[in-house]
Amino acid sequence: MQAFRLNNQTDLRFGPLKEADLKAAVSQFGDRVLFVYGGHSIKASGLYDRVIKALSGLHVTELPGIAPNPKIDSVRAGQKLAKANNIQVILAVGGGSVIDASKVIGEAANYDGDPWDIVRDSELGKNTPQLPIVDVVTLAATGTEMNINAVISNPETKQKLGARSSRTPAVSFMDPTLTFTVPARQTAAGAMDIFSHLCEQYFDREPDNDATKGMIEGLLRSVIKWAPVAIKHPDSLPARQNLMWTATAALNGEMGAGNRNGWSCHPMEHELSAYYDITHGVGLGILTPRWMHYVLTTDPTTTALFARFGRNVWHLTDAEDEDLAGHAIAKTLAWITSLGFGMTLPEVGIPDDKNFAPMAQAAAKRLGNAYLPLDEAAVTAIYQASMTPGLA
Amino acid sequence: MQAFRLNNQTDLRFGPLKEADLKAAVSQFGDRVLFVYGGHSIKASGLYDRVIKALSGLHVTELPGIAPNPKIDSVRAGQKLAKANNIQVILAVGGGSVIDASKVIGEAANYDGDPWDIVRDSELGKNTPQLPIVDVVTLAATGTEMNINAVISNPETKQKLGARSSRTPAVSFMDPTLTFTVPARQTAAGAMDIFSHLCEQYFDREPDNDATKGMIEGLLRSVIKWAPVAIKHPDSLPARQNLMWTATAALNGEMGAGNRNGWSCHPMEHELSAYYDITHGVGLGILTPRWMHYVLTTDPTTTALFARFGRNVWHLTDAEDEDLAGHAIAKTLAWITSLGFGMTLPEVGIPDDKNFAPMAQAAAKRLGNAYLPLDEAAVTAIYQASMTPGLA
Repeated sequence: MQAFRLNNQTDLRFGPLKEADLKAAVSQFGDRVLFVYGGHSIKASGLYDRVIKALSGLHVTELPGIAPNPKIDSVRAGQKLAKANNIQVILAVGGGSVIDASKVIGEAANYDGDPWDIVRDSELGKNTPQLPIVDVVTLAATGTEMNINAVISNPETKQKLGARSSRTPAVSFMDPTLTFTVPARQTAAGAMDIFSHLCEQYFDREPDNDATKGMIEGLLRSVIKWAPVAIKHPDSLPARQNLMWTATAALNGEMGAGNRNGWSCHPMEHELSAYYDITHGVGLGILTPRWMHYVLTTDPTTTALFARFGRNVWHLTDAEDEDLAGHAIAKTLAWITSLGFGMTLPEVGIPDDKNFAPMAQAAAKRLGNAYLPLDEAAVTAIYQASMTPGLA
Repeated sequence: MQAFRLNNQTDLRFGPLKEADLKAAVSQFGDRVLFVYGGHSIKASGLYDRVIKALSGLHVTELPGIAPNPKIDSVRAGQKLAKANNIQVILAVGGGSVIDASKVIGEAANYDGDPWDIVRDSELGKNTPQLPIVDVVTLAATGTEMNINAVISNPETKQKLGARSSRTPAVSFMDPTLTFTVPARQTAAGAMDIFSHLCEQYFDREPDNDATKGMIEGLLRSVIKWAPVAIKHPDSLPARQNLMWTATAALNGEMGAGNRNGWSCHPMEHELSAYYDITHGVGLGILTPRWMHYVLTTDPTTTALFARFGRNVWHLTDAEDEDLAGHAIAKTLAWITSLGFGMTLPEVGIPDDKNFAPMAQAAAKRLGNAYLPLDEAAVTAIYQASMTPGLA
């Protein structure tokens, strides 16, 4: 196991949201609040009204319109608002995009340059003081509510980059009933993001990290079991509860403890989203089984871990590791397919075109420390395998 | 799932201990340090000298001699020293006993009455300000390095009680190589404590808490696999690493998230330790399989969970739940027995005597919310079953 440090300050509140608790959590940091949210969904659900009511008596500045794959322009707008209104605390209400944008806005408020600098330079991000973030999570997916990560897109430069902020959100409210209204497609994409976060940390080159791997296996079984339930029965409380807690536990630091933490599918997917603005979870769903197949067929030393994945996650009982490994990947493909989104790049509007080369080149720069290090040719092969159904 | 709150401030440093880091962690809180430790083991291992060297330049007051099942008299002594020397920070170097005693000393330093008040009254414990605790963990067992719990014994009143403190340790250093010198018997008792913490949280009345249960299953497999390795090969780094990280992860709050958290074996064991001062982990090892057998044979509705325990923890493949459940308990008994300590109460010096009634009576008071609520007769039956080898 590698040395690691865990120091997560987030005050996580899981359960029914109470307006008084929300107001207390926000106002402990001041009365000048930037309220950041996305589109119409929190208005349709009534959550917007509940939040406004909870914040009564405070000076609230609103920043609506944060889009999926949040754009640096929204962060720039937030920076201006935060500075102009002497904002003391940010309340982010939404999914990962809203919270990620708020994290960088919280730093940009204390930075005089362009916020894109903070995204590009993780040391600058980790060292810039951040306004405290309070959030209300409305989608089980990214786990951003309990980590320092933020992913921001820059359409001009065709970049989607993972930023680091100086601290985790101060208080995160997680009320699973707020996700009853999440449509099936978003529920599926969120579940796929959770599944991918777990796989990124499970397929790690550090040997013998059984404690962490064992926890990951349990969380994988949770998302595998409950995502289809939530898609079929959107108001299933146990499904929404398990997905929400699984999302947070998957990416609050503990599931990477002792790892080398070189990720594989996220860098490849970020290029797809940067060039084509596709839904992150959908891109991960397409890439993940093709990446697994590529790794297993390229490097036989990975067979043992894929076999363990088959035994402990998919409950497979084949006698031979080779069979377990192959069947585990087939099960993974079948499960992702069952979530109901398109499973090839053309289905989500991505042709095999001139962008493959720059995307593969950019992704490969961040894949040298992956479970199986991938160069440009390897990434291209995985993108190509994602053009057609099934496993090539 | 039940509502829950997670807010763990501990700064956990896992990996090779560096003296400069230790000094920085301590001195951030001041230069008047109470250095709390146990017996001769840290002197024999050279750790004492490393700590003294690291603390050079600070005003160090020493409190040695913290015993297993730490006694309230040690806490009283620490309270006096802390007050007399205007202590600003406590450095605890040792296992759970040393850290637990330090937690209560850290509160007693800010309390004018008898520290036993703090142990008896968990509200008082949670609300008394605490001196910051920095610790260096030398035994993988209790998980106290990342929670607010402390267990203190009072030989005069024959009580061993779980106290709550106002915050978790500020900084915990966990260097698995420091546990290479832990003798087999203590390694086994520590592993049993880890196993029990996981079982206490696994066998919980809250249904459908799959995310948490899945993580627990992974940690159980870790301790089951690595404890025998550490016992046989005390300097196995992966064994010591996995045990140490498993111990912390088992009891830092996440494995109880969403649970009702009524524990079973710990309250029964605390009575044994209070009356006979036996090693906590050994008492748990004796009681746990007998408690499992009692629960399964008393309440058939528990079969499904014991069967799941058999499948996911012990990799059993019986077709019927009844068989899985029974075999899982037999595997548990066999594993504990293999750790090498006495497996009946007489073997650890506890006769069937006049103390059974008051012990059972006291334990039953804290078992009304257990997985299977236990009254005095039930506890007595479990103690009785622990008098003879095997499962009655």
